[in-house]
Amino acid sequence: MVAELISVGTELLMGNIVNTNARYLAQQCAMLGLSMYHQTVVGDNEERMAEAVRTALGRSDVVILSGGLGPTEDDLTREVCAGVMDMPLEEDAHCRERIEAYFKNADIKKITDNNWKQAMVPRGARVLDNHNGTAPGLIMEKNGKTAVLLPGPPEELIPMFKEQVFPYLQQIQPEKIVSRMVKICGVGESKVESELLDLIDAQTNPTIATYAKVGEVHLRITARVKDDDEAVRLIKPVVKEIRRRFGNAVYAVREEETLEAVVVHLLAKYGLTLTTAESCTGGLLAGRIVDVPGASEVFREGFITYSNKAKRKYLDVNKATLKKYGAVSKETAREMATGGVFATDADTCVAVTGIAGPDGGTEEKPVGLVYISCYMKDHVVVEKHQFSGTRDKIRQQAVVKGLDLLRRCILDNYGK
Amino acid sequence: MVAELISVGTELLMGNIVNTNARYLAQQCAMLGLSMYHQTVVGDNEERMAEAVRTALGRSDVVILSGGLGPTEDDLTREVCAGVMDMPLEEDAHCRERIEAYFKNADIKKITDNNWKQAMVPRGARVLDNHNGTAPGLIMEKNGKTAVLLPGPPEELIPMFKEQVFPYLQQIQPEKIVSRMVKICGVGESKVESELLDLIDAQTNPTIATYAKVGEVHLRITARVKDDDEAVRLIKPVVKEIRRRFGNAVYAVREEETLEAVVVHLLAKYGLTLTTAESCTGGLLAGRIVDVPGASEVFREGFITYSNKAKRKYLDVNKATLKKYGAVSKETAREMATGGVFATDADTCVAVTGIAGPDGGTEEKPVGLVYISCYMKDHVVVEKHQFSGTRDKIRQQAVVKGLDLLRRCILDNYGK
Repeated sequence: MVAELISVGTELLMGNIVNTNARYLAQQCAMLGLSMYHQTVVGDNEERMAEAVRTALGRSDVVILSGGLGPTEDDLTREVCAGVMDMPLEEDAHCRERIEAYFKNADIKKITDNNWKQAMVPRGARVLDNHNGTAPGLIMEKNGKTAVLLPGPPEELIPMFKEQVFPYLQQIQPEKIVSRMVKICGVGESKVESELLDLIDAQTNPTIATYAKVGEVHLRITARVKDDDEAVRLIKPVVKEIRRRFGNAVYAVREEETLEAVVVHLLAKYGLTLTTAESCTGGLLAGRIVDVPGASEVFREGFITYSNKAKRKYLDVNKATLKKYGAVSKETAREMATGGVFATDADTCVAVTGIAGPDGGTEEKPVGLVYISCYMKDHVVVEKHQFSGTRDKIRQQAVVKGLDLLRRCILDNYGK
Repeated sequence: MVAELISVGTELLMGNIVNTNARYLAQQCAMLGLSMYHQTVVGDNEERMAEAVRTALGRSDVVILSGGLGPTEDDLTREVCAGVMDMPLEEDAHCRERIEAYFKNADIKKITDNNWKQAMVPRGARVLDNHNGTAPGLIMEKNGKTAVLLPGPPEELIPMFKEQVFPYLQQIQPEKIVSRMVKICGVGESKVESELLDLIDAQTNPTIATYAKVGEVHLRITARVKDDDEAVRLIKPVVKEIRRRFGNAVYAVREEETLEAVVVHLLAKYGLTLTTAESCTGGLLAGRIVDVPGASEVFREGFITYSNKAKRKYLDVNKATLKKYGAVSKETAREMATGGVFATDADTCVAVTGIAGPDGGTEEKPVGLVYISCYMKDHVVVEKHQFSGTRDKIRQQAVVKGLDLLRRCILDNYGK
């Protein structure tokens, strides 16, 4: 079966945003075993959009459209698809109720009239409830062709696709594709790839694809199978072999497991509580921890000590240490982690101090220099990193390395 | 003049990479005043690529292709364009020399045969030297249409475009496009649009487009002009009118100004220092502040007080308050902001406490309920919000509202 994408939006044509939706949807279609030969971007123009939809429906079985479902005048995707597929729009009571409920929940009294067009549904279409916005998605089937209409914001599109469209496509696509994600932290992409070259070259089913993330490498193992038993039989030995080669650097073997979730679960498993002491990351590491539902079990408080004074006051970092070695140093990182544990009743503390730039770098301590430390069981591990990239990228990398250091410390101290 | 993009590459169709080239090229075309109505992605397939090139040349003046110029067998862009535009390929001595030089410079002795296909140039085409790789770019002109062929890797494409294609396009495109971004916080998209409907409907030059962001709405005002004077004359009154209608909700009138940067600059302007007291956002608000280069001038420390105990210990929140009203309450939010200021030497404190979910909600205090407070000049403002969406989206919205509350408090207390 052949799928294709149409992304609707002037922001894409103007280059205001990157088309991350297309990437996500293409990846999902690949996982589902759907072939894809075309992706198109069109603006909010009735004639051109209709032409694009007609062309796509002519050559592909499933056309996935994103964007242009909102309440404003130039949101036309629903209207255009209804026209091209000859499925006239009718107001849907369920959709109207959901829009009312959405605004009520958001405590907005006056609903502007333009919102009601989002309750219009092509006759015979299936409605996809939107749990994160007002515009519902739609599945329209006619003459053996399917159009899937999704809202543009990724935080609405992704959950809707995952929960409602993926199972639908899985059902209409006879071949089964099963994939497993192996996530690795602390090894670079080219190293991962060269260490797996024999596996990557030799295999046709399953296949192995590598994806570089900030500070991480993800490996997707994908198999075309007839049932779940075959999936396990094909995929399991590959995962085992990757684990054998990379050991503890493999932190997850499931798509939905994030690094922060693995850390929180490890802390909970061993009954440990965590505190954080952040300088250049300014709260982002704690923010990632708190991102995990139930983080309160292991995390109660954290410090953002951006100034030297704050480092002394809350973490009891020595004035002499700061003077002699500077705020960005192995010694300060060590005292920050220790101080965090002693200032609280936490069992462990991760500390981060570095130079995120763009200013503040010197020849001796260049932008991107970051010390990360972890106090655990009366012992502090400090790691020195030299990151590159923008201020934002340096801070993101520091967060990942901080989470990973904590993970490895738990495994070293408590694992097995 | 109308431009369009064709991105060539199976990685894009498989969702292995995000199409950042399309974004870059679209942005550049917009800056050049070229209209763009279509972007297409095709794979390395001769027939489908030829069809895409024919369609694009049929409807647009300039077609910019990226990818598929390399040495391997499935790199077909050069051959396909030569075929469609009937400009037969001939070996180019200059290109051959440059490829030799490139390998010599990279200290590679043996040049594999397939590299020489990169020296083949369509008769009459203009060669674009590649300073960062082996594949040269090409400009092919015929019958008033232009095809620009660029290598796929961004580190080759971007410098080639900047140095050689931009000036070329500037020369063939007489009109100029200037745009200005107005950023609004605290008003929903549909409300913004309905309040601007008369302006949006009435105007053709400049045009106004709205973009919904998490907790924000951005408006792009775009004018086609002959010079900078005309740009100012056309755009300025529109910006002024938007400001008049939305007042302080307009927080920036420049694309590059973020909400956190505006807040940091306001704090610096009035000589104020900030501390933060975060519960459900767990450091994300401070993280956004620290994202601004030079934030250390106004931000020295912040608290992540996830547990009740931490709220009492660091922020001196009353035990009785927590017991009577709960951690997620107006009263606790008020004491958190006050406590933050008294625990530090900061002039102001933003505090956030809420229920991010997915668990922990009750009928009385549902998931998404967030109290945000700001202490300034012996006075605390507390705002109650009911957000919807995922845990992540609720927290992101809380951060935006927290930054915006701080911004408004500064303007109310110190502005004018």
